[in-house]
Amino acid sequence: MFTRLLSALREYIQLTPEEENLLVSKLEVRRVKKRQWLVTPGEYCKNDYFINKGCFRSYCIDEDGHEHITKLAMEGWWITDLKSFITGEPAVRYVEALEDGEVIVWRKHVLEELYEQIPQLNKYFRILYQKALVNNHDRIFRTISGTAEEHYYKFVAQYPELEQRIPQYMIASYLGITPEFLSRIKSKRISAIKLKPHQ
Amino acid sequence: MFTRLLSALREYIQLTPEEENLLVSKLEVRRVKKRQWLVTPGEYCKNDYFINKGCFRSYCIDEDGHEHITKLAMEGWWITDLKSFITGEPAVRYVEALEDGEVIVWRKHVLEELYEQIPQLNKYFRILYQKALVNNHDRIFRTISGTAEEHYYKFVAQYPELEQRIPQYMIASYLGITPEFLSRIKSKRISAIKLKPHQ
Repeated sequence: MFTRLLSALREYIQLTPEEENLLVSKLEVRRVKKRQWLVTPGEYCKNDYFINKGCFRSYCIDEDGHEHITKLAMEGWWITDLKSFITGEPAVRYVEALEDGEVIVWRKHVLEELYEQIPQLNKYFRILYQKALVNNHDRIFRTISGTAEEHYYKFVAQYPELEQRIPQYMIASYLGITPEFLSRIKSKRISAIKLKPHQ
Repeated sequence: MFTRLLSALREYIQLTPEEENLLVSKLEVRRVKKRQWLVTPGEYCKNDYFINKGCFRSYCIDEDGHEHITKLAMEGWWITDLKSFITGEPAVRYVEALEDGEVIVWRKHVLEELYEQIPQLNKYFRILYQKALVNNHDRIFRTISGTAEEHYYKFVAQYPELEQRIPQYMIASYLGITPEFLSRIKSKRISAIKLKPHQ
């Protein structure tokens, strides 16, 4: 149950068997059904979630009632409303399971105790947050500098599995374009692939 | 010269006098002139900078030659092209001094050594990156959900000093609006302030 999590941790830090035992003794596994929410706006989000199984999205709804997907995530990723989790303010987004799945629940007070007991966790989360920041900067840079088409191709190249598993209209929302525009981009891509042998 | 940096570190971690001495012995102070660049696109960005004095901006230029400001920063903040610094890929943005200033230079290989020698630095940067991520999420959320006007008011409330020190057209670029639109928002605000006593 904790194999995927322990492998993820071992990528950046080396824990002793005692530390690994302590860690898993404090964590909890939760099954979630498709369309179930892990976080909803207004609540105080007291958990961070490591995804053992399934795809998830986080999204918010603007004043006009439109959904905006802020994150798509799958096995081995983390998901929560980070601002609410860190600052204790009410959440502003939903986190929803897109498939039946399973998460490992890191309660905030447990994580704080674990930082004291296993200081190396600071290194793990330092690297994790560093990568997330770089991805965010990348996303902002692509939005500024690239076309929607380039943006889509980079997404597919970076996350081919997400592209297969997640409904197209959600990918469009994540990329900030309409589903119709995404279809146009994709059909151009298919014609390009079909044309290639004749070129 | 290192007073501001040590205070910043002490906010999140406690270092021994020996650790503080080791740290400052490895760092370097650099004076910068207004309009001088700390980072330019294409270079391999090998330093992270702690701002001792001055205002800085990071920006990129899109294919049509338009500037987009991605960050405004002042004393006590950090600035670099984080992706280039972390991954070793070429930088995609400029970091420019907006005033004569002074930075503390953290070379990448020095930081890596320091993480080994003073593991608590992982905690410092874990918290720093965590806050940066929350700010980024906030910025994305505001862009999605708020009007440009709300966006501007929140910026002023959060960073009143930046609003005073930085040219208006740069604040407009940071907020993703035209300078003309920013002027309209500001003149509405002045009339609102003037009107208040009569209401």
